Amino acid sequence: MSGTTRGPRPSRRGLVQAVAGLAAAAAGLPKGGVAEARVEPECTSPAGDHRENLIEPFWGTRQGGITTPPQRHTYTAALDLVSTKRNDLVRMLHIWTSASAAMSAGQTAQPGVAPAVSDSGEVIGLPPARLTLTFGFGAGLFMKDGKDRYGLAAHRPRALVDLPSFNGDQLIETRTGGDLSVQACADQPQVAFHAVRQLVRLAYGVTRLRWAQTGFIPGIGPNETPRNLMGFKDGTSNPSMNDAAAMEQFVWVGDEGPDWLRGGSYVVFRRIRIALEHWDRMPLDFQERTFGRHKVSGAPLGRRNEFDPLDLDAAGEDGDPVIPESAHVRLAAPVSNDGAQIFRRPYSYNDGADFTIERWPPWRQGVAYDAGLFFVCYQRDPRTGFIKIFSKLAKYDMLNQFVTHTGGGLFACPGGVAPGEFVGQRLIETT
Amino acid sequence: MSGTTRGPRPSRRGLVQAVAGLAAAAAGLPKGGVAEARVEPECTSPAGDHRENLIEPFWGTRQGGITTPPQRHTYTAALDLVSTKRNDLVRMLHIWTSASAAMSAGQTAQPGVAPAVSDSGEVIGLPPARLTLTFGFGAGLFMKDGKDRYGLAAHRPRALVDLPSFNGDQLIETRTGGDLSVQACADQPQVAFHAVRQLVRLAYGVTRLRWAQTGFIPGIGPNETPRNLMGFKDGTSNPSMNDAAAMEQFVWVGDEGPDWLRGGSYVVFRRIRIALEHWDRMPLDFQERTFGRHKVSGAPLGRRNEFDPLDLDAAGEDGDPVIPESAHVRLAAPVSNDGAQIFRRPYSYNDGADFTIERWPPWRQGVAYDAGLFFVCYQRDPRTGFIKIFSKLAKYDMLNQFVTHTGGGLFACPGGVAPGEFVGQRLIETT
Repeated sequence: MSGTTRGPRPSRRGLVQAVAGLAAAAAGLPKGGVAEARVEPECTSPAGDHRENLIEPFWGTRQGGITTPPQRHTYTAALDLVSTKRNDLVRMLHIWTSASAAMSAGQTAQPGVAPAVSDSGEVIGLPPARLTLTFGFGAGLFMKDGKDRYGLAAHRPRALVDLPSFNGDQLIETRTGGDLSVQACADQPQVAFHAVRQLVRLAYGVTRLRWAQTGFIPGIGPNETPRNLMGFKDGTSNPSMNDAAAMEQFVWVGDEGPDWLRGGSYVVFRRIRIALEHWDRMPLDFQERTFGRHKVSGAPLGRRNEFDPLDLDAAGEDGDPVIPESAHVRLAAPVSNDGAQIFRRPYSYNDGADFTIERWPPWRQGVAYDAGLFFVCYQRDPRTGFIKIFSKLAKYDMLNQFVTHTGGGLFACPGGVAPGEFVGQRLIETT
Repeated sequence: MSGTTRGPRPSRRGLVQAVAGLAAAAAGLPKGGVAEARVEPECTSPAGDHRENLIEPFWGTRQGGITTPPQRHTYTAALDLVSTKRNDLVRMLHIWTSASAAMSAGQTAQPGVAPAVSDSGEVIGLPPARLTLTFGFGAGLFMKDGKDRYGLAAHRPRALVDLPSFNGDQLIETRTGGDLSVQACADQPQVAFHAVRQLVRLAYGVTRLRWAQTGFIPGIGPNETPRNLMGFKDGTSNPSMNDAAAMEQFVWVGDEGPDWLRGGSYVVFRRIRIALEHWDRMPLDFQERTFGRHKVSGAPLGRRNEFDPLDLDAAGEDGDPVIPESAHVRLAAPVSNDGAQIFRRPYSYNDGADFTIERWPPWRQGVAYDAGLFFVCYQRDPRTGFIKIFSKLAKYDMLNQFVTHTGGGLFACPGGVAPGEFVGQRLIETT
């Protein structure tokens, strides 16, 4: 698990000074250009939020961004590989590795090169903001349109299946799939987007953007559970990232996986639009029965405290179950799924509003929020994780009348990167 | 001008406890439901950012959100009025006023009513986050489709013109215009969206959403200029919000306007998509000549420091102007516009990526960032402000090859609301 370290003085600020001369030289500026590139040395902590000065380590036995305490923002992209040359892929992974390490440390993507030249520059002066970059490999890396482009087809893990079509799926092709995934998480949205944008720039001609999604969570105290846009706490029954045994059991790939994937995980992304206008018209008790939890406290229905155990056998005076048969928490509970668990790390998303047609009577047309949940979960094996659990939810969950899955993907996230290695090296070099 | 006050302990937290009993009662819960709604009393400052506990005053001679120090996030919506009854409009403005005051103070939209019932609830436990709500009136409030729905047609201010069609406009109808505007700004995106969502909920049947846009700026030090997604500092030559004389001259409507608009302003919104992929391929010196400023320092071309004065007459050794004829800063400068100035309060936006067709050779098709600038500016008179300045920019600005205006609107923002008043009361009661 990655531990947060307090970094030295945010490096992007120092860097600006260090390479100012280079910047001026590269730009062919007169000598005066050197001085102009300096920033005030007495910069204060940006916005007074000390967390933003923290650095999450890039190198390690695990990739960051999985059991890292959730940052406030994400920018997640799926990319398609367009070069069929294995050397291009390897070179890209090399470059991505060094750039990711640099950006995670609060530097620009190519330290030593003038930031304004090597980098789109919008993070100059910004803190590291706990940036993490988490890479995933989609099925298309191994085989695409019947072609084994990189000689990796034999190494596609069995668990990297094609996601089945779930009940109610409304997936948009241009928001779904991808050969690679890159999830940037940071405590500033500008830092997260910047990181992915530099990786895309550094790989022009080798890969290109397929889809991208921003996300956010509210800023809350360290032991609180964030609320999603439905107003409910989301993540109460998540296995704890501090429970190493649970993480081993449910998140990290073990001996059953290939060497390059050990200590890695599988990520499932789902862009879930929520019909907030519809939800907002529902009475509180209906909302609570839909989730199976009380809204304000987050406690299971009929209980007092958020972390009280789920008693799925409890019945009310009328003999009916206190937690309805099709309540979300009942269907998602491990006990309802042969013990299956996934580690959720979801964000809300908000892409504004657009014209849409309601999915419920009286089927009105109009402008509706394009907002909801950017669902992200990690698991040791998607067949016994997301696929198993969501196959049931997709059929019976009362929530389904308010949500529509419009995109996403499944990616195998390799283990962490040791200094000197590059992302995915152990996969590439097995062949 | 609104001054930031340090609020008491975030009220939404206290409120949760105060109305927990109500929540349980309204939900028809057993008595145990009361206790379950309590939150831990020892909550710490969320995320360690003390700014988020600050409250911006709602009541005052000016609306908040104009010369308020920019919050990190915005959620801005335009709405269309669908009820033709004047009483509905008045009632809505009453309700919006009390809800806005409450939410700005860190409470739920209808204090005293159980939050989970009156409110979508996703801000329970969140700090006030310096929320401001800024209201604007569009032309449609006064006259729409030839109808004077509310008896206000005679009071349409002369300066509330229909925006002309500018060179290069690519406005999408569903992203443009609106009878009313509500701009929420806050240091948490969830707080900003929540506020607008509650106002929409409270006005079902009277008004409905037309378009909505999220935006963000980086978190920086108090005396730094934020960078936009092109990597340049944006706002260096803005008139200072601390310069009361400049604000009177360029921002606040004076005696030339109707009573209800005095102390108010006009806002122009423009959703400006930036072809970041194109921009990122341009050499640094070309980018700098396009803006007329150095990228890292923000100084005018040929100068050293961000706030060095623009010398538009300076010529290089070759006799050409140091700041090109069609550089953005030259065309936007007051001296190039008969002294005209506007007060910019822009946000970046990031709606992910979508399929698009390039506007430049070789006119490729593909997935491109749907990101750019959510331009927001305030002015005393749009005819001598945005319209005057942008008419020239739209024709000659070198930036135009990278940007596309896809939506927005013009709204008259009434003066501030005194306690006991409602938003727009002085307009409504003139008739």
